[in-house]
Amino acid sequence: MARAKLTVNLEAIADNWRSLRRLSRDGTDTAAVVKADAYGLGAAEVAATLLRSGARIYFVALAEEGAQLRHALGGEVEIFVLSGYQRCDGGLVSSCNLIPVTNSAEQFFNHRLDFPDGPAALQLDTGMNRLGMEAEEFRIVREAPAGAAPILVMSHLACADEPSHRQNRSQLEEFLSMTDGMAVRRSLAATGGMFLGQDFHFELCRPGIGLYGGLPHRGARPVVHLDIPVIQVRDVQPGETVGYGADWSANVPTRVATLSAGYADGIFRLLGNRLTFHADGIPCRAIGRISMDLITVDVSRLPKDPESLQLLGQHQTIDDLADCASTIGYEILTSLGNRYERVYGIG
Amino acid sequence: MARAKLTVNLEAIADNWRSLRRLSRDGTDTAAVVKADAYGLGAAEVAATLLRSGARIYFVALAEEGAQLRHALGGEVEIFVLSGYQRCDGGLVSSCNLIPVTNSAEQFFNHRLDFPDGPAALQLDTGMNRLGMEAEEFRIVREAPAGAAPILVMSHLACADEPSHRQNRSQLEEFLSMTDGMAVRRSLAATGGMFLGQDFHFELCRPGIGLYGGLPHRGARPVVHLDIPVIQVRDVQPGETVGYGADWSANVPTRVATLSAGYADGIFRLLGNRLTFHADGIPCRAIGRISMDLITVDVSRLPKDPESLQLLGQHQTIDDLADCASTIGYEILTSLGNRYERVYGIG
Repeated sequence: MARAKLTVNLEAIADNWRSLRRLSRDGTDTAAVVKADAYGLGAAEVAATLLRSGARIYFVALAEEGAQLRHALGGEVEIFVLSGYQRCDGGLVSSCNLIPVTNSAEQFFNHRLDFPDGPAALQLDTGMNRLGMEAEEFRIVREAPAGAAPILVMSHLACADEPSHRQNRSQLEEFLSMTDGMAVRRSLAATGGMFLGQDFHFELCRPGIGLYGGLPHRGARPVVHLDIPVIQVRDVQPGETVGYGADWSANVPTRVATLSAGYADGIFRLLGNRLTFHADGIPCRAIGRISMDLITVDVSRLPKDPESLQLLGQHQTIDDLADCASTIGYEILTSLGNRYERVYGIG
Repeated sequence: MARAKLTVNLEAIADNWRSLRRLSRDGTDTAAVVKADAYGLGAAEVAATLLRSGARIYFVALAEEGAQLRHALGGEVEIFVLSGYQRCDGGLVSSCNLIPVTNSAEQFFNHRLDFPDGPAALQLDTGMNRLGMEAEEFRIVREAPAGAAPILVMSHLACADEPSHRQNRSQLEEFLSMTDGMAVRRSLAATGGMFLGQDFHFELCRPGIGLYGGLPHRGARPVVHLDIPVIQVRDVQPGETVGYGADWSANVPTRVATLSAGYADGIFRLLGNRLTFHADGIPCRAIGRISMDLITVDVSRLPKDPESLQLLGQHQTIDDLADCASTIGYEILTSLGNRYERVYGIG
């Protein structure tokens, strides 16, 4: 088999959800963010596991994602759609019982017009300037003639992964000020916000990356293992080059393994010579350029030719790999490609 | 609709295939490389279009890709599997009538054992040191007792996108030397190799990126358009910040649009402030960090708020975007995510 295998440990995701739930203030619900196909790991499989663990509230980015999730989970859970309410999505909102997180007064009133009794949430902008109503717009909504009230008022922190950043406190204060006196469920914290203290928890926390084993959830269990088959091994002599552009050349006799995955599988091309694989814990460096479907690795130090090499697992986490790629663990996950054989384990 | 729309112009792909076919030496066949789901654009749709245009020979990376392609195209075409022959893939090879491109003597003889009359191809390493038999190993295959001969002998150029690189000529000479006297169909050139001259064409060329509108096929028609909906627009005052980390702050009053796509859709996070969108040809710069599902863009210079902004199209090709990301157009294509609404046009 030349197809690489991505193992997703569903029990680890459930454990991570439970440990975040334990962190929450008493009386705070714990949702699960499963947008972007559960950060690339499979929203249907992940959410079904979390449902069995007790999660009853889910967040997705798009109405289409919400529809798929409803199909997977059935009718009992709340599904919030973060991108807001677009009138053309009304059919999905209605047929799949989705709760739009309205981001503007226009969206809020459009939703109320289209679904006078339908549940809606409401996002406030407390300083990130990305999605949500600002104070003046929100005042219009609050002062509007009575109608269906939002069932959740939320906002999002821009700097939660930097606990000492002053914007965390200023967004908290803005959120408190904007929602003062409202008798409504409130939510401010995603994974990072949950670690800023219980002041940030309100009635609902919304962890995402922390479920999937990524920072800033330091105690998280790792969730993914990625093993890539070796489909050929050869000896390369000093002076010979390897790969596109003949960029890499051997200084000493080198045993080179060719692996059956590449940038089409979400292993960023820019990682090139910075990438490390492991064989039973022994690190092996990639050499030459990453191809679309193939990566070449120096396996000279191994006692025998490996059948596969590990990219993600106990020796290299998503955050380790993210550091190599100058990005964050979230992007490592969401970039995992479609070609892997996905194996859902509970080990 | 918050879901972004990716338009794939199938007729442009067919035109690109035809123009590459016209470039080939008389008597040379022109295959189509549709590995990695046709570079992310949809192997079934792309290959069905090329089949109608006359393409009869296809290349994929994995046996699983070959099986899907066989299902889409029916029984009349040749499907070559570049990753080689692994015995555990024998079932797929047999049931889907796939032709493994064997990369070692072991693979070649295993295939002959498993399928004494089954067609196999053979890859030679002529200097890239990635996949394929080296001269000594190939001699064993050539000198083996008579049996099913390979139906294609091929190799791959490492530096074809740099026409003046001396490795092009050295690989050609090695290929000629290794295959001297063999009465067999030969193939050396992918898109780049096709432009190196007819010496490189042999009996079969195998264009990939050139079909999809990418360099080094300079005359190619662009194939993809990517338009991303604007789901909110706001005014940001001097001193206010936008997005994660509060990295970007306004020096002047700025109109900021929030777009419904992000790094989970293959828009690399590292592009951050380097990314440009277009509204009716007017460029607009992204500001702040790219989020998983959202991108913020300065639209101050537009006469009115846009409903969507274009990332790929006539004003910015896959190669333009690749330059911004310090990569190649191939990776822009293969990274396009699953959430887009894919529209297959023939315009």
